[in-house]
Amino acid sequence: MQTSQTILLKKRPKGKPSLEDFEFTHTEIPTLKEGEVLLKSLYLSVDPYLRGRMSNAPSYIAPFEVGQPIESGIVAEVLESKAAGLGAGDYVFGALAWKEMQVTKARSLTKVDPKVAPLSAYLGVLGLTGLTAYLGMMEIGKPKKGETLLVSGAAGAVGSIVGQIGKILGMHVVGIAGSDEKLALMQSKFGFDAGINYKTTENMREAIAKVCPTGVDVYFDNVGGEISEAVLFNINKFSRTINCGAISVYNTTEAPKSISVQSFLVKKSSLMQGFVVFDYADKHPAAIQQLAAWMKEGKLTYTETIREGFDQVPQAFLDLFEGKNQGKMVVKL
Amino acid sequence: MQTSQTILLKKRPKGKPSLEDFEFTHTEIPTLKEGEVLLKSLYLSVDPYLRGRMSNAPSYIAPFEVGQPIESGIVAEVLESKAAGLGAGDYVFGALAWKEMQVTKARSLTKVDPKVAPLSAYLGVLGLTGLTAYLGMMEIGKPKKGETLLVSGAAGAVGSIVGQIGKILGMHVVGIAGSDEKLALMQSKFGFDAGINYKTTENMREAIAKVCPTGVDVYFDNVGGEISEAVLFNINKFSRTINCGAISVYNTTEAPKSISVQSFLVKKSSLMQGFVVFDYADKHPAAIQQLAAWMKEGKLTYTETIREGFDQVPQAFLDLFEGKNQGKMVVKL
Repeated sequence: MQTSQTILLKKRPKGKPSLEDFEFTHTEIPTLKEGEVLLKSLYLSVDPYLRGRMSNAPSYIAPFEVGQPIESGIVAEVLESKAAGLGAGDYVFGALAWKEMQVTKARSLTKVDPKVAPLSAYLGVLGLTGLTAYLGMMEIGKPKKGETLLVSGAAGAVGSIVGQIGKILGMHVVGIAGSDEKLALMQSKFGFDAGINYKTTENMREAIAKVCPTGVDVYFDNVGGEISEAVLFNINKFSRTINCGAISVYNTTEAPKSISVQSFLVKKSSLMQGFVVFDYADKHPAAIQQLAAWMKEGKLTYTETIREGFDQVPQAFLDLFEGKNQGKMVVKL
Repeated sequence: MQTSQTILLKKRPKGKPSLEDFEFTHTEIPTLKEGEVLLKSLYLSVDPYLRGRMSNAPSYIAPFEVGQPIESGIVAEVLESKAAGLGAGDYVFGALAWKEMQVTKARSLTKVDPKVAPLSAYLGVLGLTGLTAYLGMMEIGKPKKGETLLVSGAAGAVGSIVGQIGKILGMHVVGIAGSDEKLALMQSKFGFDAGINYKTTENMREAIAKVCPTGVDVYFDNVGGEISEAVLFNINKFSRTINCGAISVYNTTEAPKSISVQSFLVKKSSLMQGFVVFDYADKHPAAIQQLAAWMKEGKLTYTETIREGFDQVPQAFLDLFEGKNQGKMVVKL
C-alpha cells in the first residue's frame, strides 16, 4: 500500500509551541471508495488559530488529538476521483490533514479556479482570511464613510485586507504593526493612511491619539494584550471592536490580566464582539463574490509569505508568533 | 428674596466619596419668568452613576462643577407656574438640582400621575431605573425564552427589575448579591430562580457553573471587577453581556486590571456592550408603557430604600457604595 508523509501533533504545547510538538511520520493511503477523491496537497495554510486547537481547552472548534494529524486549509490537486463533479486535474480547497497525499470525501471540498486567482489566494484573500476580514468588518464593525478604522496586526493576512476594505469604504485607516518595513508596505501597497510601530513606540496611548485625531470608531483587534489596552483610551462613543484574535496571549499559560474594559465600554456605549468566520457560513458565497469583484477592479490586493517544502510546515507555523510573515503565510509543497 | 437649602459639590472625591465632598448652603430663588415653574422637591434619587459626574474625567455626561449644585432625578410639586400645561399642585419629574425649592424651565419636566404609581416609583421602576433595565435587556441582551440570565448587583434598583423582566420572558434567572437577606428577597419577591452571595462564596467561577448548569447566555453586568471575571469562564457561545455599570471600580483611583476578555470573546463569539439609558431616548415612551403595563398586571414589582430628610442626601449616596440599599435608594424630602 502507498504511504504519505504526514505531520502529527506529538504533544500539546505548554506556552509557545516548538518543533518538538510535531512529529513527521508516514501514513497509509487507503483505496478510493465511492464519493472519494485522492488528493495531492499543493498549498498549505498555517494560521494563528491553530494554536488554540493544539490545546485541550474548550473553544469554538474541537481540539486536535495527540498522535493524530494536524489539519488546516489546503489547496490540492485531484489525482483520482470516484466522485461526481470532480476529475483528475481539478483543483480543490478544503480543511484537510497535513499530508502530502490523502483520500477524502469529495463533498467537503470546494472546487477552485486557477484562472480567477493564483491557487494560493484561495488560502488567503479568497479564502478564510478574506472572509474573516470582510465579515468581521461588515457584521460587527458596521463601518461608515468618514469614520476612523484602527487595525492591529495590520501587516498580517487578515489585517492587510481589513485596511483595504476600510479604504474602499471611505474610512481613515490606521494600522499597528511590528516593524518599519511592515508599516511602509501597509502604506505603499495597501493604502493605509498612517501606521504605528508598536515595538519602537513608548506611549502607545498617545501615539494612537496622534494618528487618530478624531478617535477610533472601529477597532479590528487581531492581537489583544497591551496594544488593545492603549486603544481603550482612544475609543469614541458607540465604537465597535471586532475581537478577531488575541495572538499576543495565545501562548500564555495563565489567563493574562489587562486594564478592565467594563468602565470604558459603559462610558462610551461601546461594543466588543468576538467573531469567527464559521459563525457566518451562510454569508460566505456572497462575501467571496464581493472580494473577487474588488480584486478584479484592482481595489484589493494581497501579499503572502511563501515557504517551500512539506518539511518546513512546522517552522512556518512557529514563525507566525515571531511576526516573520508579511500577509498570509503559506507553504508550497 | 427667598432662599433654598442647596447641596454643592465642594471638591472632587479622590477614590471613595465622603461627606466632606459635599457642602450645604443656601441659594436664592429667583423670580418666576415666562415658561418657568417654582418647584418643591419631594423625592430625590441617588444613583451610582453620579460618582462619575463628580470626577473630571470625560464620560457620557458632563461632570458637575466644583462649587455648583449636584443634580439628579427629582420628583417635585409645582408651587407656582408661568408655563402652559402646568399648574400649582401638579407633580413633575426632571433632572434637577439638589435644592429644596427651585425655579426651572417647564419644558425639561415630565408630568407624572400619582394615581398610576406612587410618586417615588417615577425615580425607579417607571423612571431611569426601569428604562435602564428594560432597554439594556431588549436592545443588547436580546433575550430568548429558555436562555439563562445572570444579573450582578441583582438586589439593586436596576438588577431587581432586570431579573423580573427575565422571568416575564421565560428565562432561567440567577442573581448575584452581597447578603443572604438580599438573596432571599430576590427569590421570594422578585422570582429569581437562584442566587449567589459573592461575599461568602470562595470560588465564584464554580458557584456560577453550579446554578447556571447550561451556561450563561445573557449577563447583565452592574458591577464589573472580580465577579465579572468569574462570569467569563461560564459564558455560552453567542452570549451577550450588557455593561450597565461597574460600581466595583467607580471609586478606584487607578485603572483596575482584570483577566483579559479578548480571548474569551473570540472563543465564544460573544458580545459585550456598554450602555446608558440616554442612548435610547426615542424608545423611552414605549418602554415606560410596557413597564407600567407589567406593573398593572402584577408581573413587575419593586422595592425601595427610603431615607428621610434633605440633610440625609449625601449619606444616602455614600451608602450605595456599601450596598446598604435594597432596590432603588430614594430620599424623601
